[in-house]
Amino acid sequence: MASSWLSFSLSFLLVLHGTFAQQRYQQQQGECQLNRLSPQEPTTRIQAEAGVTELWDQNNQQFQCAGVSLIRHVIQSRGMLLPSYVNTPLLAYVERGRGFYGIMQSGCPETFQSSQQMQQGERGAGSRFQDRHQRIGQFRQGDIIAFPAGAAHWAYNEGNEELVLVCLEDSSNNANQLGQFSRRFFIAGNPQQGQQQQGQYGGKSLRRERFESGNVFNGFDVEVLAEAFGVDREIARRLQGQDDQRGHIVNIQQGLRVVRPPFSQEQEEREERQEQGQYGPRMNGIEETICSAKVRQNIDNPSRADIYNPNAGRFTTVNSLTLPILSFLRLSAARGVLHTDSIMAPHWVTNAHKVIYITRGEARIQIVDHRGQAVLDDRVRQGQVVVVPQNYAVVKHAETEGCEWVEFNTNDNAMINTLSGRTSAIRGLPVDVIASSYQISRDEARRLKFNREETLIFRSSGRARSSERVAAA
Amino acid sequence: MASSWLSFSLSFLLVLHGTFAQQRYQQQQGECQLNRLSPQEPTTRIQAEAGVTELWDQNNQQFQCAGVSLIRHVIQSRGMLLPSYVNTPLLAYVERGRGFYGIMQSGCPETFQSSQQMQQGERGAGSRFQDRHQRIGQFRQGDIIAFPAGAAHWAYNEGNEELVLVCLEDSSNNANQLGQFSRRFFIAGNPQQGQQQQGQYGGKSLRRERFESGNVFNGFDVEVLAEAFGVDREIARRLQGQDDQRGHIVNIQQGLRVVRPPFSQEQEEREERQEQGQYGPRMNGIEETICSAKVRQNIDNPSRADIYNPNAGRFTTVNSLTLPILSFLRLSAARGVLHTDSIMAPHWVTNAHKVIYITRGEARIQIVDHRGQAVLDDRVRQGQVVVVPQNYAVVKHAETEGCEWVEFNTNDNAMINTLSGRTSAIRGLPVDVIASSYQISRDEARRLKFNREETLIFRSSGRARSSERVAAA
Amino acid sequence: MASSWLSFSLSFLLVLHGTFAQQRYQQQQGECQLNRLSPQEPTTRIQAEAGVTELWDQNNQQFQCAGVSLIRHVIQSRGMLLPSYVNTPLLAYVERGRGFYGIMQSGCPETFQSSQQMQQGERGAGSRFQDRHQRIGQFRQGDIIAFPAGAAHWAYNEGNEELVLVCLEDSSNNANQLGQFSRRFFIAGNPQQGQQQQGQYGGKSLRRERFESGNVFNGFDVEVLAEAFGVDREIARRLQGQDDQRGHIVNIQQGLRVVRPPFSQEQEEREERQEQGQYGPRMNGIEETICSAKVRQNIDNPSRADIYNPNAGRFTTVNSLTLPILSFLRLSAARGVLHTDSIMAPHWVTNAHKVIYITRGEARIQIVDHRGQAVLDDRVRQGQVVVVPQNYAVVKHAETEGCEWVEFNTNDNAMINTLSGRTSAIRGLPVDVIASSYQISRDEARRLKFNREETLIFRSSGRARSSERVAAA
Repeated sequence: MASSWLSFSLSFLLVLHGTFAQQRYQQQQGECQLNRLSPQEPTTRIQAEAGVTELWDQNNQQFQCAGVSLIRHVIQSRGMLLPSYVNTPLLAYVERGRGFYGIMQSGCPETFQSSQQMQQGERGAGSRFQDRHQRIGQFRQGDIIAFPAGAAHWAYNEGNEELVLVCLEDSSNNANQLGQFSRRFFIAGNPQQGQQQQGQYGGKSLRRERFESGNVFNGFDVEVLAEAFGVDREIARRLQGQDDQRGHIVNIQQGLRVVRPPFSQEQEEREERQEQGQYGPRMNGIEETICSAKVRQNIDNPSRADIYNPNAGRFTTVNSLTLPILSFLRLSAARGVLHTDSIMAPHWVTNAHKVIYITRGEARIQIVDHRGQAVLDDRVRQGQVVVVPQNYAVVKHAETEGCEWVEFNTNDNAMINTLSGRTSAIRGLPVDVIASSYQISRDEARRLKFNREETLIFRSSGRARSSERVAAA
Repeated sequence: MASSWLSFSLSFLLVLHGTFAQQRYQQQQGECQLNRLSPQEPTTRIQAEAGVTELWDQNNQQFQCAGVSLIRHVIQSRGMLLPSYVNTPLLAYVERGRGFYGIMQSGCPETFQSSQQMQQGERGAGSRFQDRHQRIGQFRQGDIIAFPAGAAHWAYNEGNEELVLVCLEDSSNNANQLGQFSRRFFIAGNPQQGQQQQGQYGGKSLRRERFESGNVFNGFDVEVLAEAFGVDREIARRLQGQDDQRGHIVNIQQGLRVVRPPFSQEQEEREERQEQGQYGPRMNGIEETICSAKVRQNIDNPSRADIYNPNAGRFTTVNSLTLPILSFLRLSAARGVLHTDSIMAPHWVTNAHKVIYITRGEARIQIVDHRGQAVLDDRVRQGQVVVVPQNYAVVKHAETEGCEWVEFNTNDNAMINTLSGRTSAIRGLPVDVIASSYQISRDEARRLKFNREETLIFRSSGRARSSERVAAA
Repeated sequence: MASSWLSFSLSFLLVLHGTFAQQRYQQQQGECQLNRLSPQEPTTRIQAEAGVTELWDQNNQQFQCAGVSLIRHVIQSRGMLLPSYVNTPLLAYVERGRGFYGIMQSGCPETFQSSQQMQQGERGAGSRFQDRHQRIGQFRQGDIIAFPAGAAHWAYNEGNEELVLVCLEDSSNNANQLGQFSRRFFIAGNPQQGQQQQGQYGGKSLRRERFESGNVFNGFDVEVLAEAFGVDREIARRLQGQDDQRGHIVNIQQGLRVVRPPFSQEQEEREERQEQGQYGPRMNGIEETICSAKVRQNIDNPSRADIYNPNAGRFTTVNSLTLPILSFLRLSAARGVLHTDSIMAPHWVTNAHKVIYITRGEARIQIVDHRGQAVLDDRVRQGQVVVVPQNYAVVKHAETEGCEWVEFNTNDNAMINTLSGRTSAIRGLPVDVIASSYQISRDEARRLKFNREETLIFRSSGRARSSERVAAA
């Protein structure tokens, strides 16, 4: 049976989270020669016992331009993503579900521990819940979680529904010295084993593949591991996970028991409301506070919106001012909601690429390059992704359905410059400059400049949906 | 006629400010394999209604090594460079003329406005000068102006003579995530239209070309623009500038009227004198003060010289200590003046490339690489450019005419290390190290070390001009 | 004779510290596609009058991945490395010997000077020791010395034994804008002349080569040099060193006499003990204090150990917290000592590559990549080097001999994450996560987590040496 698996696995490519020998004409990272964009869906899926990881093609020119990879973990109830670390900073958005996670930092204290009484008998066999470990955190739908490069972490689905995590890995980040692609290093399991034997997945045409990523313990000598852990060879061998058939997301039948404070969503929201408007001091060096740094921020709650228009939608950002660890990761994110017949003003981002993932509905998105040509003019639907390169102009128009999305930015404080509206670049121009630039009268220039009083999210008249109708002045 | 223009335009290359499909053997940015430098002049010109932009060849190995582009705008009286932004930080030096400019930052307040009385009737048609807009600034010959990457800006020639702006665009800067070349995004006009039909330009052999850059509004749907600005389709169409034949620099017949304080050169100079010696605090994050940041500094005024030798010349720097926004741009600049028969001491810059543009006269410049070979030994004349790569040793010798120049550095605080003079590396060596290094007596070592009491700018004896004459001890 | 030298020199490659015209398929810097590592020894040696420089092959994929070069200077008693500067930051470890060095910073004051009385007659010929020059420093075995990019420096062997300096040059550092390789610019001598004519060197198969590096004065015109220094042409000619046959390390017969305070090793050690635990403030800008910055730190003294296990060994780091100039160089270093039968816990570094140079003994080193495959499993001996790429897991096991090494990190505060021991990532995991991850019982998970109470350096039972013996529980 082992040999039949071997021959079977040869028909799967060993490509993920790694590098290609055959990749000859490798585009230089950050070289954005994009003539035509298109909405992207995942091209690859890796099945495991208790979930699946879907990957967007990191060789696609959009992702090459932005220097990022995008993946989506779908984790079943009581499923756990095995402990691992990545060579890039990582931002995760919780699209659906809830659970908890741990980030292990070598040297940080084990601040979560069972009560004193139980601890006394700690090493006894029968006392099940006695433990002490590093801080773990809880998350729920709408959270952004920040994982520093090289920090080992795990995640567990505590709820009854699927947990969906959309993750951006920024391989062009300074923190990555390993080169163009993101690589995940597991410290448990046998991720390469995977579960490719399973049948078709919902009719989707994703290539089923195995992780190139493996378990680093597998590369060490068992004797050395036994010495390093002070255990016998049998346990040391289990570290290597060679017989593990579960893949990188494993099922925990009886549920995961850890030491942790009770979780109350209402309390958390109350705290968030209190936090609003508080700008923490900038951190000077993450190393001093890495053990206690806040790494999570909810951006789904409408009460946290940065820009809010009751008729048209809202826009909520998380950046290094609201979540200081992002100054270390050099990444930020935002959540956008556009109602039916609403527009997000044409704008460009001065200092970042933007990776947009649609979470609900659809929008017509137009992206324009420096030549004045539309490199994208398309309806982008739920589950699809587009990259807006730095400085490219973009407009979003939600038509019949409305649209919700999350966007990741390759700068910890992405600066949006709008082209229309009350805070726009055009509004900053003298009327005479507008009149001369567009060869219109001063009166028309005044209308261009002042007609829209909203800032970023506009209510549309609905006329733009059909280009046949004549526009009324 | 439209079709005849089309066929005509095909004979022009669409190359500027963009990228090349045919560029196969692209040199890696920052890889400085220079065996031979030569003074560079612009190779390309783009003619517009009220001015011309000249471009140095950004594929030239000197500019590739430095990771920068250099361009020169020559703007006629009452000409305006249309609003645009660039994917790189930009330093402009005002070689000649005067005028004003605006940098539009989304979200910055409109702090320049007409007086209260006039404002009441603001939206009325007849009241011409009623307006409010973001801060605009004035400039004159000798100014350095700093434009952050992605910040939209425009410039207007208010004077009666030509306005000449020499601009460095630093595409290897961290702020640029779009790749190797600088790209300009216009938000008005029709820059690609250009004015190539015009005749020869002063007998120069520049290729006449069209901008690859266009107007980003051109890529959007007119309906969406109409919605976004809340205007009718006719005005929205004017945003796209499709019928605009003026190119990227337009003539404003009646002159540009904006709200602004009176300009007094004497007052400004008085303020500059007061500023001297004041070192502002370093900014921690540009975003807090970007709306009010000082972006301009005159480096032509002899009273601001950092190094001054009445017989030989002067040297004036602007860096992040004197103009704090430069810490954000990671660029600096300097102005040098050498009188007849004067020498700028042999030196190297530890942390930056240097791009030297000669504004008057000529100098014999020698540049030496790590092999001890001269990669340049040439007379460099007015209007020519040479790049001095990081760490390369350089000496300038102004002979009969004297020489003036501006230089741009790819670091916000370029550190010069001189090889001779009172503050030189040689002066820092023990006499015994000098004697042993150069196999000379201690007495000779002392002369090498102490003979020159000047620091950077020396008066030459004039003997070096002719290499035949025997040097006298 | 001159022509015979010429034909002779053609048989030597002009390769060092420079770039290759023939290097066609240049690997992109930082692209770490390593399937197999092997311990590296120097491949090239450059002989000079009073010493030799040995170079590791900077085209080797390990060094390409780390973006660094490694060289070793062996300087005889009374030998001096001629003044020079490098386009990269440089960390030197004093493997053996003692001496003093100078770093010349243009504009820094000449703070070392002869006593007042002697100074009065300073320019007189006969008064030998009268001088003033910039600060010079002393060093001894076990010191790390930090040289900023582009800072000229020299070093002298004051002792009676050989001085051995192991130097890391970080060409992928931000401070280097010149491209992939490190280049050394001499400001004295004639390094290309070298001493290749000498015979075999201890039977080693090193290629004998000449420096590509030369003396920058050689590229300048003699007349201009004479003017710049205010000396006659004969002395100016000596600056160029054209007749100098000594190479880059020269012998100073009578010994080097400089102005300096008396050197007392005991005093220095006393000061070091006082310093322990003192964390200096972070510097905001090196330019303010570059003249007085501390650039040296001893990491050999056991009393400075950061991690100490009397039975197993010690580990001593120097980073930007203990030597603040390293925050400017973005490099750090550490010294490790493992006794016989000791293990350095399996670990990964989250934010840096590690370049390990064995100074004594040998260790079995295993390095594992993200696929879980050992890219190195070898005994690495004294004088050999291995690179541990960022995030790769590594374990060291000193068997019969014990092992000592120095390691350089490509980050000024390299963060080690251990996989076993009291401060490990595994220790931070809840017992239930461990049990589920490795499919073991909670009891076994507890043993994995708690059995090793040491942190980084463990005493081994010695069993791992022979893999035949059965492990006892």
